Amino acid sequence: MKRTMVAELLRSGRVDTEVVVKGWVRTKRGNKNVAFIALNDGSTINNIQIVADVAAFDGELLKRITTGACICARGLLVESAGSGQRVEIQARELEVYGEADPETYPLQKKGHTLEFLREIAHLRPRTNTFGAVLRIRHAMAFAIHKFFNDKGFYYLHTPIITASDAEGAGAMFQVTTLDLKNPPRTEEGRIDYSQDFFGRSTNLTVSGQLEGELGATALSQIYTFGPTFRAENSNTPRHLAEFWMIEPEMAFYELEDNMDLAEEFLKYLIRYALDNCMEDLEFLNKMYDDGLVERLRSVVAEEFVRLDYTEGVEILKASGEKFEFPVEWGCDLQSEHERYLVERHFRKPVILINYPKEIKAFYMKQNDDGKTVRAMDVLFPKIGEIIGGSEREADYGKLDARIRELGMSMDTLWWYMDTRRFGSAPHSGFGLGFERLLLFVTGMANIRDVIPFPRTPKNAEF
Amino acid sequence: MKRTMVAELLRSGRVDTEVVVKGWVRTKRGNKNVAFIALNDGSTINNIQIVADVAAFDGELLKRITTGACICARGLLVESAGSGQRVEIQARELEVYGEADPETYPLQKKGHTLEFLREIAHLRPRTNTFGAVLRIRHAMAFAIHKFFNDKGFYYLHTPIITASDAEGAGAMFQVTTLDLKNPPRTEEGRIDYSQDFFGRSTNLTVSGQLEGELGATALSQIYTFGPTFRAENSNTPRHLAEFWMIEPEMAFYELEDNMDLAEEFLKYLIRYALDNCMEDLEFLNKMYDDGLVERLRSVVAEEFVRLDYTEGVEILKASGEKFEFPVEWGCDLQSEHERYLVERHFRKPVILINYPKEIKAFYMKQNDDGKTVRAMDVLFPKIGEIIGGSEREADYGKLDARIRELGMSMDTLWWYMDTRRFGSAPHSGFGLGFERLLLFVTGMANIRDVIPFPRTPKNAEF
Repeated sequence: MKRTMVAELLRSGRVDTEVVVKGWVRTKRGNKNVAFIALNDGSTINNIQIVADVAAFDGELLKRITTGACICARGLLVESAGSGQRVEIQARELEVYGEADPETYPLQKKGHTLEFLREIAHLRPRTNTFGAVLRIRHAMAFAIHKFFNDKGFYYLHTPIITASDAEGAGAMFQVTTLDLKNPPRTEEGRIDYSQDFFGRSTNLTVSGQLEGELGATALSQIYTFGPTFRAENSNTPRHLAEFWMIEPEMAFYELEDNMDLAEEFLKYLIRYALDNCMEDLEFLNKMYDDGLVERLRSVVAEEFVRLDYTEGVEILKASGEKFEFPVEWGCDLQSEHERYLVERHFRKPVILINYPKEIKAFYMKQNDDGKTVRAMDVLFPKIGEIIGGSEREADYGKLDARIRELGMSMDTLWWYMDTRRFGSAPHSGFGLGFERLLLFVTGMANIRDVIPFPRTPKNAEF
Repeated sequence: MKRTMVAELLRSGRVDTEVVVKGWVRTKRGNKNVAFIALNDGSTINNIQIVADVAAFDGELLKRITTGACICARGLLVESAGSGQRVEIQARELEVYGEADPETYPLQKKGHTLEFLREIAHLRPRTNTFGAVLRIRHAMAFAIHKFFNDKGFYYLHTPIITASDAEGAGAMFQVTTLDLKNPPRTEEGRIDYSQDFFGRSTNLTVSGQLEGELGATALSQIYTFGPTFRAENSNTPRHLAEFWMIEPEMAFYELEDNMDLAEEFLKYLIRYALDNCMEDLEFLNKMYDDGLVERLRSVVAEEFVRLDYTEGVEILKASGEKFEFPVEWGCDLQSEHERYLVERHFRKPVILINYPKEIKAFYMKQNDDGKTVRAMDVLFPKIGEIIGGSEREADYGKLDARIRELGMSMDTLWWYMDTRRFGSAPHSGFGLGFERLLLFVTGMANIRDVIPFPRTPKNAEF
């Protein structure tokens, strides 16, 4: 008989029909006469209750059904007598696929700390918390693809291994097939990268943006969604060495269009979560962050504030607030500043634009004032910066001058310059850190808890 | 005025309305009185024709409008007089965003070889061929996500940097932050990886399957879709060092279910291409592979043959065919054998199952005959193997014995074994190489031409 997923049974299963369910036992309780098995199969945070008449089953079989065991149950779907759920199953047949020895299986009924669950990241998807997080993660990834597909954007796979350092965005991981014990050397004693796999020194990408611009100046509207890397020795709840990023890039978008898209995009994603993941959100709201659902609703409802960096700095200076890092025009805003603007001053998301050029990347479009660039950062409650983007400098001469001014090498940028040399188009784009979005949507506090297998300093297990 | 995409104008633009288009000039021709500009914006393979009354425009402006230039045109959408298209634009305003010097812009009207276009991969998305390929690539990626989302599968991001070698599937790229010029060494003179970023030696993943199984034995049905890597020095039209792979993994699926899913999946994707990408497919059919559309239609229509490896070998031996590699039971089938079965014997796709265990990976479920495993390869015309998969060995003892028999190390597999130790479930999965699918769907002959920025030996440009 065909198996039915628990989510479907709980939602729309017809009582008095025979059903088969398969999954993992969360708990078993009961007495001499009857056993109650709570079964989860990952399709929903809710378990289905299986009621077994003890006399009707082999006692040895029932003993093997413990927390963590994998079983198959066939039986009649009936209205639930006691529990909070609509239906339950009166077991007719039970089969154990795989036991879970109560002496050694780490996920017993008692609660576990998130720290402990990180050490068993291979098993934590079997918990309520990580089931919820991973279902939401899936829903957000799908919503991202759907949003862009519906708008006529093309998903562009930018390279993971690269010889260029997109923007000096951070320390990089080297990728090599050279023998570290005895690498080939040039006559001058340097490492001879001409003998490496790619004939040159290569790294893991820190951003797909520059290649994304190549796509946008041909296909008009593209987005990337892929892994990016930072070899920074940062052991914090906000840093990962390997994380996923979404980077749309649009020809013929100016800064205003870019802001419109970013706001529409974030609201679409959060609305999608509210519409499709409410059971999981309510669980996380109850267990980890009792303001979560309300915060999500408020972001969808509010119009984002749009503000010049210069005005933002003035508000912060006039606030009378004692910040750890003092605020002056020209400084890079810290999380405390961003959150003051969002959480205390405006009480809604803020898009800050026109930043000083000295604190932003070389490719941003220069304003006529000679001091600022057409950057935009979207600031969110609890998170601070969730999106960073800009209109790009489309003028070959200005871009060339800025690159030289910064002393950057043209050797690895010749192809990027060609987009401005041939058929240059006004264009804009932004980057959204996927795990940062997930921190906001799930309410989890540590970024290691919103990715299945976190990579951090000294940790590449699983 | 808001820009309209060319695809929309050609499909449903209302004549006698004023429109704005933006894009890149493919050609300009005409005479003293009138100029015809073919404009493409990436939204479709078709150009829109802009007709400009030469007398109405600045002569200098018109001169700057050459192949490759980026322009904006405002004008009246009218029924097309001469060309093959429904509508064209009578220009009222023209603006040049970016010129493309005819002396240096590489993409002039004349055709270019695919080899030459690979050298300018940063510009080739502006050609008809790569516009078509990249739009199809996008459509296939979206269809993959939609297929699995609709079926209740969860997208699982498995790690890119890993300390384990999934299956000895191939040579690996090392990922390190050690200084190659002077790496730290242990007292015995070995490289001291405890000082590397992750505190151990790490590589780029060759497959997400093993981690995917962790997801499937918690969430029931997952899929991966991410980059995978092989550091093989293979300079062939079928090998990339960096490519994308889709790996679904399903608890409670046996081999038969796995075959059903693989067949349904491939047919869904190809039907999606036929339904959504016909203009691009027809272009590729005309330019590169005149059997393309017919082949796609035939695969959707045919029921795949399902056959034991043993029977397949017998057919090959009885064929009287002279193969380069002789066929014997136990041998790994070569492309010539696979294609003989598919293209000449059956004339439809074939799923070959129950391969000798010696030529398949350690994790495949062992058959009772002691000789074969529940592997399945889906063989396609022109491509050979397009999908490889299996039911997985769910029995702890059998898996443990096989790993020891093969002399593999348990040190990096302890977490994998835990899926069989705790609540083990029958489960299955398979892998689809995304670029191999695209070779089939686009009809392109070289895998470097179905990925935006190919990574191959001695090549990591862009």
